[in-house]
Amino acid sequence: MILAETFEEMLKEIERSAPLIHHITNYVTANDSANTVLALGGSPVMAEDESEVEEMVSIASALVLNIGILSQQKANALLKAGRKANILGIPVILDPVGLGTTQLRRSFVNRLLNEVDLSVIRGNMSEILHLYGGAAVTRGVDSIEGTENGGEDLARNLAKRYQCTIAITGEVDIISDGDRTYHIHNGHPLLSKVTGTGCMSASIIGLCCAAGKPSLYGALLGLSIMGIAGEIAEARLDRPKGDGLGTFKVHLFDAFSLFTVQDYKERGKIHEIHES
Amino acid sequence: MILAETFEEMLKEIERSAPLIHHITNYVTANDSANTVLALGGSPVMAEDESEVEEMVSIASALVLNIGILSQQKANALLKAGRKANILGIPVILDPVGLGTTQLRRSFVNRLLNEVDLSVIRGNMSEILHLYGGAAVTRGVDSIEGTENGGEDLARNLAKRYQCTIAITGEVDIISDGDRTYHIHNGHPLLSKVTGTGCMSASIIGLCCAAGKPSLYGALLGLSIMGIAGEIAEARLDRPKGDGLGTFKVHLFDAFSLFTVQDYKERGKIHEIHES
Amino acid sequence: MILAETFEEMLKEIERSAPLIHHITNYVTANDSANTVLALGGSPVMAEDESEVEEMVSIASALVLNIGILSQQKANALLKAGRKANILGIPVILDPVGLGTTQLRRSFVNRLLNEVDLSVIRGNMSEILHLYGGAAVTRGVDSIEGTENGGEDLARNLAKRYQCTIAITGEVDIISDGDRTYHIHNGHPLLSKVTGTGCMSASIIGLCCAAGKPSLYGALLGLSIMGIAGEIAEARLDRPKGDGLGTFKVHLFDAFSLFTVQDYKERGKIHEIHES
Repeated sequence: MILAETFEEMLKEIERSAPLIHHITNYVTANDSANTVLALGGSPVMAEDESEVEEMVSIASALVLNIGILSQQKANALLKAGRKANILGIPVILDPVGLGTTQLRRSFVNRLLNEVDLSVIRGNMSEILHLYGGAAVTRGVDSIEGTENGGEDLARNLAKRYQCTIAITGEVDIISDGDRTYHIHNGHPLLSKVTGTGCMSASIIGLCCAAGKPSLYGALLGLSIMGIAGEIAEARLDRPKGDGLGTFKVHLFDAFSLFTVQDYKERGKIHEIHES
Repeated sequence: MILAETFEEMLKEIERSAPLIHHITNYVTANDSANTVLALGGSPVMAEDESEVEEMVSIASALVLNIGILSQQKANALLKAGRKANILGIPVILDPVGLGTTQLRRSFVNRLLNEVDLSVIRGNMSEILHLYGGAAVTRGVDSIEGTENGGEDLARNLAKRYQCTIAITGEVDIISDGDRTYHIHNGHPLLSKVTGTGCMSASIIGLCCAAGKPSLYGALLGLSIMGIAGEIAEARLDRPKGDGLGTFKVHLFDAFSLFTVQDYKERGKIHEIHES
Repeated sequence: MILAETFEEMLKEIERSAPLIHHITNYVTANDSANTVLALGGSPVMAEDESEVEEMVSIASALVLNIGILSQQKANALLKAGRKANILGIPVILDPVGLGTTQLRRSFVNRLLNEVDLSVIRGNMSEILHLYGGAAVTRGVDSIEGTENGGEDLARNLAKRYQCTIAITGEVDIISDGDRTYHIHNGHPLLSKVTGTGCMSASIIGLCCAAGKPSLYGALLGLSIMGIAGEIAEARLDRPKGDGLGTFKVHLFDAFSLFTVQDYKERGKIHEIHES
């Protein structure tokens, strides 16, 4: 129950302070990210002009960087905001959307990793593998190691390499800060059929990282909220009446807005994975 | 009942002409603004490239300028569109999103106020205070006056200064054209938990300003619609079933699309505030 | 029943391959387009930086080009992606949003038509008339011919001119590949009251064009899905309870996510129009 108690403190802190979460993100999912943060008691702000991101970071409690709809202009803003957040000691969450699909994204993320200290990197297995492999290639390593145990070693190794928390989302989420590694068994396959649930997860992690605990807990609580809300949203579907993905998404925001630690106590499925 | 009659005429005119409302706005809330205008019988259009905004303004009946996700490029388009609207005599509504958070926004709004005549400025109290204070500072005044009476003096003074209608949205909305000042007591706290309800309010005001009455009435009807729709949306929530913010937002668009003057007659709470 | 069988094969192929549909589109409706493609079993991706669109096209099965929120920068990306898709033999769908409203859009579409071979152009009657007239003007022709028969001749002539499928959406959809011309009598007026249903139609056509049949079938199945889903969405509205446009849009995505060939068999209304 120790996790539940930590999560309860974090949720209380979010409710108390309504932390401002600055996003530099993509236009496809920005509205959903903003509504997710609002529904969970935070205060979202989106701004991406190079000339104003540093001021925005200065009043924020966490920074979420998302590389969807990347451009050279936005790349500069992402770097500038990230460096400022480091100076101020504000947690930085990276969502490397579609990493590996294009050279623009690969080289930008490499640069970001060199110039900005991250608190959490959240991606799906493909994105995280590219993160691993991209660096691997530059080290002359061809094979991709670390996935034999379903990704735990990958998460652990990357967490150590970048000194941050790695959160790999999928049917089972894998979270590691290098020392401790966890599985989360919550969620529902429908979540993968709504665009932006990955981006929204990164936003929730950003919000939870603003609650004053180590980023490992931010990632664990953030992904638990997403998974559990997905389960609650699905359970309410009235399929004979024709409910499908549209209604599921509405219910998802309902569940965010009503989320309490009680939901975690009833449904939370976090397991620590010990190194073998 | 005189207001109800004016509103009825305005709603009929909107239904008759389906006015085109040109927006230069932010990507976070643009979809919601467009759907709001459509649901209320208008015709939204979004275009922001400097090379096409003047043509778009030329076929529009109102122009809504929103400074969310501001950039230098967009600033030029906002100014160009605003000047063109002035030449054509089309009402211009400004939503100074996040004014005061960054220098980019402050200096842009100062420039806009110098170069474009506005019909309505809609903001929350913080944004409107920055509007007041920003100018105040340039006049060497340190203290912010005008909020002693809950904002009516602030609205009245700014309305006189900029010769437009000021609409301060909040638990109680305050609207003034400098001569007459009103309170609107409609709305529901959940409205502040959905991103973009401010932007959507500005869009509705734009739509209502296209109905041929003075901008004061555009602001009064626009904010009444938002407040009343929020009340209707909340009243339909089935909380034991798990309805929350997701369902609330769906109901909000339902209420927009079914809004009639009868809703105003049953629920409208506009009070004129007389100068003391 | 021959069409139903073809559609069944196409839907199975989409389910089997979950084709990646690359969009270069506008921020107003991008989220809805992405969710539409996901709900119907495809995999959407949005990317618009000139430096990465070719790589993205290379892994895609169809390319959807949409000229909403056009800019010079985006114009270059649209052209580059279109040319790359041609080289790779990937179907290209054009949605000429608001064509005719501005010079920027007219000249861009003219250039695109010169440089890129399109599979399908989908627009409303006004946009398609501008497509026809725009070229007409450059040929010194003042009158607009082809609409005497409700648009079939227009569609047929344009299909021949551009050697592609023309899809004119409206109360009755008109689809022609130059040889064969069809009417679709599905849909509901509420569809025109939700922003982006045109863009979403283009996305669905893109998805259906990735199913390996000629583009004529992609357009026919795509617009049938949109029309039928609109009918199903409307039929579920509980108007006495206050359901309106918000709920309608939710139901629309429900219907997309549950769409099967059985829906087409029960509701599909496609009629071939023979040249008189």
